Amino acid sequence: MAKTPLNWQDAFPETVRMLSGNGVLLNSLGSDGTPNTMTIGWATFGVIWGRPMAIVFVRPSRHTYGLMAQTPDFTINVLPDTMSSDLAFCGERSGRDVDKFAERGLTLVAGKEVKTPAIEQAAIVFECRTLHRNDLVPAEVDPAVVERYYPEGDFHRCYFGEILACYGNLS
Amino acid sequence: MAKTPLNWQDAFPETVRMLSGNGVLLNSLGSDGTPNTMTIGWATFGVIWGRPMAIVFVRPSRHTYGLMAQTPDFTINVLPDTMSSDLAFCGERSGRDVDKFAERGLTLVAGKEVKTPAIEQAAIVFECRTLHRNDLVPAEVDPAVVERYYPEGDFHRCYFGEILACYGNLS
Repeated sequence: MAKTPLNWQDAFPETVRMLSGNGVLLNSLGSDGTPNTMTIGWATFGVIWGRPMAIVFVRPSRHTYGLMAQTPDFTINVLPDTMSSDLAFCGERSGRDVDKFAERGLTLVAGKEVKTPAIEQAAIVFECRTLHRNDLVPAEVDPAVVERYYPEGDFHRCYFGEILACYGNLS
Repeated sequence: MAKTPLNWQDAFPETVRMLSGNGVLLNSLGSDGTPNTMTIGWATFGVIWGRPMAIVFVRPSRHTYGLMAQTPDFTINVLPDTMSSDLAFCGERSGRDVDKFAERGLTLVAGKEVKTPAIEQAAIVFECRTLHRNDLVPAEVDPAVVERYYPEGDFHRCYFGEILACYGNLS
């Protein structure tokens, strides 16, 4: 899918719509050059340190968690609605067990500004450089949230990524 | 200024425009019922825990930092461009020394869903309930960011606020 540069703010509504629906794909890269992807439904976008920034969240149990420590950048790939089964697959299976890109025919393309690749089929791509990581503090999370989302702990790590490039096709 | 309910996503572009420009006002409330406001230029918006969420950042040295610990909610008030001098004032002066609302003629109105009041003159208001707090981890902040924004430490605390109401006037 041919892509053109986008103002990242203009990509926000469609990105939030997909986050709230079938999710979007978070790509990361191992130090051995092997990428992985996972479906995420949570992210925020805005301005921090005078820069456009995305914050994404990954649980320690995830394969992506290790990769995010190996390469300090990531891409957020917003797929079209027609690819909901791919989003379901990439949320259920682990990159420890399967090459999700090959399995689902997701075509990798080199990042323009980061080492982590993007996905050709995406309608929108955000390329982000990790400027900060911190962790949720279990004692400071609302009890109702803990009960629903963290019955076994595994509290998310937060990654602050400067948006270095945003491109795609807004229909 | 009469306000109507807004989809929080629709309020995002104007909010980011102001964050990147003169800033927006973050209101907080002391346990004694005294509110304060400060100008902020950094915030993110999106979805976390299946809820619409805003993340704001406050340094420990700020008067607001103490108030945010006393009342677990806040309001984000996006003023019109014509009020840039008020934004400058509320960024420079501390609520320890002056009642910024009285000094600048900012009219407080009760929150619809939170205890912290909003500002009548705002074009957009977000009312948020604090579901989480954590802190930046100095060793994990990009060195160039530390050099520019944290020469004296005072690293920000992050507040995750569920957006319970959003209203205003989008021109």
